[in-house]
Amino acid sequence: MATEIERKFLVTGDGWQSTTPTYYCQGYLNRDKHRTVRVRVAGEHGFLTVKGITTGASRAEFEYGIPLDDAKALLTLCDGPLVEKLRHVVEHKGMCWEIDAFLGDNEGLIVAEIELESEAQELALPDWVGAEITGEARYYNSNLAAVPYKHWGHPAE
Amino acid sequence: MATEIERKFLVTGDGWQSTTPTYYCQGYLNRDKHRTVRVRVAGEHGFLTVKGITTGASRAEFEYGIPLDDAKALLTLCDGPLVEKLRHVVEHKGMCWEIDAFLGDNEGLIVAEIELESEAQELALPDWVGAEITGEARYYNSNLAAVPYKHWGHPAE
Repeated sequence: MATEIERKFLVTGDGWQSTTPTYYCQGYLNRDKHRTVRVRVAGEHGFLTVKGITTGASRAEFEYGIPLDDAKALLTLCDGPLVEKLRHVVEHKGMCWEIDAFLGDNEGLIVAEIELESEAQELALPDWVGAEITGEARYYNSNLAAVPYKHWGHPAE
Repeated sequence: MATEIERKFLVTGDGWQSTTPTYYCQGYLNRDKHRTVRVRVAGEHGFLTVKGITTGASRAEFEYGIPLDDAKALLTLCDGPLVEKLRHVVEHKGMCWEIDAFLGDNEGLIVAEIELESEAQELALPDWVGAEITGEARYYNSNLAAVPYKHWGHPAE
């Protein structure tokens, strides 16, 4: 078990693209925030991950690598639509940012995440980072499966 | 992934006890029959298991060994009460029977299971085996967590 301490931001600028993003496809065997069970195909790797409830920016996380074929089969057992995205990994001032450019029904949403050692850790924000969305439930990937970005009421609409 | 083909019976006689049963404690991160997610501590071993829906006596099963400490921590995330039992493993005519003598709120219930290679496989029944309960949902361990044996309406009551 690990404790995941993570802050999330919307992405505004353009300087974050890596040349080698990885295609992610994930679904949920449970979307309950108290016991989220995620199946993920990340490139050629499969994962089964359980997360507990989020407190502040922290969450208990149990992640296990599983055979890719198992992960693909488990995706077919998932509840609701799958979430697809391209993950870009970018270093900024010695820290590793993960930027998810969503696809499909969540296309247009781009979110940057960074894992921290503690909630109080100082963070140098890149200039392509916008509003902080840590803890905002509608941005949880598990909720994007149920209510995708395209169904949100966007101000421009 | 494996396909689990299993028949289940109530236990009536006494000839099934092994001298070295293993204590099992298990809970569910999802009890939905379409995507059951089980956490199990079996003696000194931990497991995370996903099962699909049962068709006849068959069910897709994905089982992963996980660290014992992870399994114990995951049990605290489970939905509803845990299921505890002593598992006895007994050989009968070259086949391996698993007999679960339930504890706690399911005490008094004893169920024998056998895994088969095919649904049509011939089976020699030991004399301590009673009525077949394959596919009877109330005997699923995931349902025994929600509605334990002691809350059933027993004829003797």
